[in-house]
Amino acid sequence: MTASTAAHAVPVSFARVKIDDRFWLPRIKANREQTIPCNFQQCKETGRLDAFKLKWKQGEPNPPHIFWDSDVAKYIEAASYSLKAHPAPELDAKLDALIADIASAQQPDGYLNTHFTVVRPEKRFTNLRDEHELYCAGHMFEAGVAHFQATGKRTLLEVCCRYADCIATVFGTGPGQKRGYCGHPEIELALIKLYHATKEKRYLELCRFFVDERGREPNYYNTEALARGDDPKNYWAKNYSYTQAHKPLREQDEVTGHAVRAMYIYTAMADLAAELDDAPLQAACERLWKHATTKLMYVTGGLGSSRHNEGFTYDYDLPTETAYCETCAAIGFVFWNQRMLHLTGDGRFADVIERALYNSVISGVSLDGTKFFYENPLASVGAHHRQAWFGCACCPPNIARLLASLGEYIYSESDDSVSVNLYVQSEGSLRVAGQNVKVKQQTDYPWDGAVRITVSPEQPAPFELKLHQPDWCGKLSVSVNGSRVEAIAAKGYISIQREWKAGDAVEVKLEMPVARVYSDPRVRMNCGRVALQRGPLVYCLESADNGKELNAVELSRQQPIEATFDANVLGGMVTLQARAKKLSSDGWSGLYRPTPAAGSEVKLKAIPYFAWDNREPGEMLVWIRES
Amino acid sequence: MTASTAAHAVPVSFARVKIDDRFWLPRIKANREQTIPCNFQQCKETGRLDAFKLKWKQGEPNPPHIFWDSDVAKYIEAASYSLKAHPAPELDAKLDALIADIASAQQPDGYLNTHFTVVRPEKRFTNLRDEHELYCAGHMFEAGVAHFQATGKRTLLEVCCRYADCIATVFGTGPGQKRGYCGHPEIELALIKLYHATKEKRYLELCRFFVDERGREPNYYNTEALARGDDPKNYWAKNYSYTQAHKPLREQDEVTGHAVRAMYIYTAMADLAAELDDAPLQAACERLWKHATTKLMYVTGGLGSSRHNEGFTYDYDLPTETAYCETCAAIGFVFWNQRMLHLTGDGRFADVIERALYNSVISGVSLDGTKFFYENPLASVGAHHRQAWFGCACCPPNIARLLASLGEYIYSESDDSVSVNLYVQSEGSLRVAGQNVKVKQQTDYPWDGAVRITVSPEQPAPFELKLHQPDWCGKLSVSVNGSRVEAIAAKGYISIQREWKAGDAVEVKLEMPVARVYSDPRVRMNCGRVALQRGPLVYCLESADNGKELNAVELSRQQPIEATFDANVLGGMVTLQARAKKLSSDGWSGLYRPTPAAGSEVKLKAIPYFAWDNREPGEMLVWIRES
Repeated sequence: MTASTAAHAVPVSFARVKIDDRFWLPRIKANREQTIPCNFQQCKETGRLDAFKLKWKQGEPNPPHIFWDSDVAKYIEAASYSLKAHPAPELDAKLDALIADIASAQQPDGYLNTHFTVVRPEKRFTNLRDEHELYCAGHMFEAGVAHFQATGKRTLLEVCCRYADCIATVFGTGPGQKRGYCGHPEIELALIKLYHATKEKRYLELCRFFVDERGREPNYYNTEALARGDDPKNYWAKNYSYTQAHKPLREQDEVTGHAVRAMYIYTAMADLAAELDDAPLQAACERLWKHATTKLMYVTGGLGSSRHNEGFTYDYDLPTETAYCETCAAIGFVFWNQRMLHLTGDGRFADVIERALYNSVISGVSLDGTKFFYENPLASVGAHHRQAWFGCACCPPNIARLLASLGEYIYSESDDSVSVNLYVQSEGSLRVAGQNVKVKQQTDYPWDGAVRITVSPEQPAPFELKLHQPDWCGKLSVSVNGSRVEAIAAKGYISIQREWKAGDAVEVKLEMPVARVYSDPRVRMNCGRVALQRGPLVYCLESADNGKELNAVELSRQQPIEATFDANVLGGMVTLQARAKKLSSDGWSGLYRPTPAAGSEVKLKAIPYFAWDNREPGEMLVWIRES
Repeated sequence: MTASTAAHAVPVSFARVKIDDRFWLPRIKANREQTIPCNFQQCKETGRLDAFKLKWKQGEPNPPHIFWDSDVAKYIEAASYSLKAHPAPELDAKLDALIADIASAQQPDGYLNTHFTVVRPEKRFTNLRDEHELYCAGHMFEAGVAHFQATGKRTLLEVCCRYADCIATVFGTGPGQKRGYCGHPEIELALIKLYHATKEKRYLELCRFFVDERGREPNYYNTEALARGDDPKNYWAKNYSYTQAHKPLREQDEVTGHAVRAMYIYTAMADLAAELDDAPLQAACERLWKHATTKLMYVTGGLGSSRHNEGFTYDYDLPTETAYCETCAAIGFVFWNQRMLHLTGDGRFADVIERALYNSVISGVSLDGTKFFYENPLASVGAHHRQAWFGCACCPPNIARLLASLGEYIYSESDDSVSVNLYVQSEGSLRVAGQNVKVKQQTDYPWDGAVRITVSPEQPAPFELKLHQPDWCGKLSVSVNGSRVEAIAAKGYISIQREWKAGDAVEVKLEMPVARVYSDPRVRMNCGRVALQRGPLVYCLESADNGKELNAVELSRQQPIEATFDANVLGGMVTLQARAKKLSSDGWSGLYRPTPAAGSEVKLKAIPYFAWDNREPGEMLVWIRES
């Protein structure tokens, strides 16, 4: 067994992975039965769907908003993935009808945007910085590709190609073309998908153009503002670092600005680095990733410390109650890390996918699939709750499309290797070593660290099986057909190179003790505090189990912590139990006194962070005071 | 010796107290030489002074703002107090000239407001809720009274009386009168001052009217908004609790809304309760005070947890870095407590005066008197600094007037008693027991707890001398002419009843150890943390003495803490020293790991909170983690 990189390995499409997992199936079912229909209903009720009929007239109420097209596109994308896993003729027809409306909204020159077609046609492509115009295009392209991948139907894909071709006439380095790029990155990563789906190099080139132009001097947003008659100094965010356009992307070292924008452009950078074998671009990605993960990332994988810019502030500034941690930012972080994983083959990117996915991503939706967090703080006094929808509704359809395409994150394949990146009970149909290979996982992960992987090539064949060793897992054992094999990870993967035959069984046992996690003391909020983690799941205290005043709890460093599966909690979860001390407010008559509060012994129960706010309202706390 | 209430005791006017104190004189000198002239200069440069010439015309830039008159009035008030303590013919003449301008701006009907006279004359008294119109009037009345008290000149006082009489024609319960009251309380307490200065009962009556009307149904702000054609639902603050007008003041139990507004109206309520012997009003004040001091007050005496409403949030919510603690709120808290002290004779109100004054009030101005805090947080990452001025400039002249009138807070007098409320080296000229009594304090307070008080009546006379025993002081000794006397405080005062003769010397020794202060554990931010206090001074750590990452410091509960006077620190301060542990960020390569940070021993030095941000920029921390 040797370690190797996963260079040239690619994700196995959602279309070839069937998930059958105790942890994920309820999430996916809620997503299919509640979240996706709810997204449709909200898009319908708010006028987002009808907007494509282009019937809105000046002076009427409820004009199509600049974001609206993107919400509908994300709905189509999510519904398409879902349709593949779970065929549903009604949904299929509903999508066809909606796509017909969208196609009918496309202008003769290929342009497609409800807002700028009916509300401000004269303003088309005049304010890329603020208006999300190419962002909406990007989401439509992702929808077109997903619908094509899921159904084989090309209607929306072709609409998207026509629109992309229209965009390519407007933007470029040629005479009379605009050297602009969107204030909210998205189209860049979408163009890579369009390229993959169509094999048309011009979409790759357009992506490269947008990435290359971003942050160049003279800054396009200045040029564009002056052309509009605006003073660039009036930009509310003051600095183009908000939109990662303060300097060329290849020169950037620090993650800045709006977190979702950052994640989307870094995703495209990694995509492009892989497609073009562009070492400086890859190096920039590595620098930015190091900055994100060593200075800015919440223990939940959440990103963004501040509501003000929906993004980053300064190094080690990770407030908990006021953490922004937008659901979309964690989703974007998954996207970026998936690209980095396939670009480098390094398991540290799979670690981040896992951290974000099991914590800050899925906390974004209620267990029943009907309510959503925009912000995912790490502490709450009881006033932060999921909502059914948002005026700015990016998060609900974003989590819907991620959950519906979860299959895409589990396996990678290359000519001579299979990687298992996430442990999810599932079956993947891969193409390795010239033949079809079924890879099947049986596991109760993340509640339990035992995973049985059955590898079944059509014919016996030599290839490498790579198993991710998560960063939280200090010890694991691996056996093949009952024989223990040496399991030393390189770059985060255990590699098993052998000739595989149908039914070969690999048993992986990841030791999954309760772990205490500490922060770098430069994170001032977490000094003297501990987080509890088991497997990939970060835990939290909730008032529903522990009463009020969670900060009055003091957990001794020596205290053993037990993990038990509790079928009665939130549909069945492993919860953590420990004895602790809690400071008492009994006997306090004023706010301040010279003697500290007395403590009494309490029993703590912690639940997985993602599951908080699914019972009665109350406090929540991730970072517990330790004594 | 017996305890007695100070009912009927009144503050001894600033005009009769001469301060000669090592701690306060430098503050007062900086106030006189820097702050007050700087306030004048800023008022001049920004157009606030010229506004009274009423030359502004529609279409010109820089129209008089609705707040402006109040800033000028507070400047006059501060300068007047200062003039009394430190005669200065130039300043006297400057005030006369300015007052002549103000008088010339008064309209034939007595109305006086630069904004509503030249900018929007048709809107006079149409939006009391938002426009600060009566607030500006109140500050002008305070200025008029102060100028009269300081100089004996009646010009501004008479202008104020004419304006008050004009207001009394507009507001009242008579036919055609408005039953309104200002969104920002202030005029109420100012009318009491005007009443005291003129003995004209109609000003007391007008104050009573404003207090009685506040919060009555139908709410005047609804009536007024509808009259303007506004929907009352559009009120940005949503609820009239922001301006303490959600229900009648006598029925209020909870301190709400904007902190300065709250303090100013509670001050007037206490004033009115004393004047009218109004028990329900006094009971409301007591309830509100209890709420403020047991649920909402920072250890520095600061008030207001949130920038959003510049005020209160919910019980026990006392964030430190984001504490609002507006300088003006602490000043208003001093006003209110001074009224409560004289209403009840209870030393717990003197405790709050001391707490606010020595901490959250004087932190509002730099040691050199040139820069100001609007917000006084209890922790800083190094980005919060005093500024020379503010667009909304309430704080700089507010602190100027408080420091210039500090004398007013030191002594109280009644027919048969003298109270020493604050220990400040000074000489008061009192009128007690039918004769003039000089009371002289010699002390190095707050650095030292020894106070020598010399009581000198013109003729020997029996009266009570009352000495405040601060809440932080567990032990004190008192002797009269060298003989130890029993010193048991009742309602916060040690009472010495005897026949006093000229030169009688009282020695008070307040034990002043370093105290550890703990919060009620319902203050979630302070759990596991300790504040250090010595005498009335709350201490803090600053980076200038302790390096960065102050939250990485852990102070053992057993660690002795030493206090030493350090002549080299900030002009001479008692600083605190202790050994402590500091978590090290050495060797951290990522943000999170399973082993806690190692600690190394460090020497801590704490300085008085009020003096922070007077050296190089850096972190600051009041609540230190304790182990």
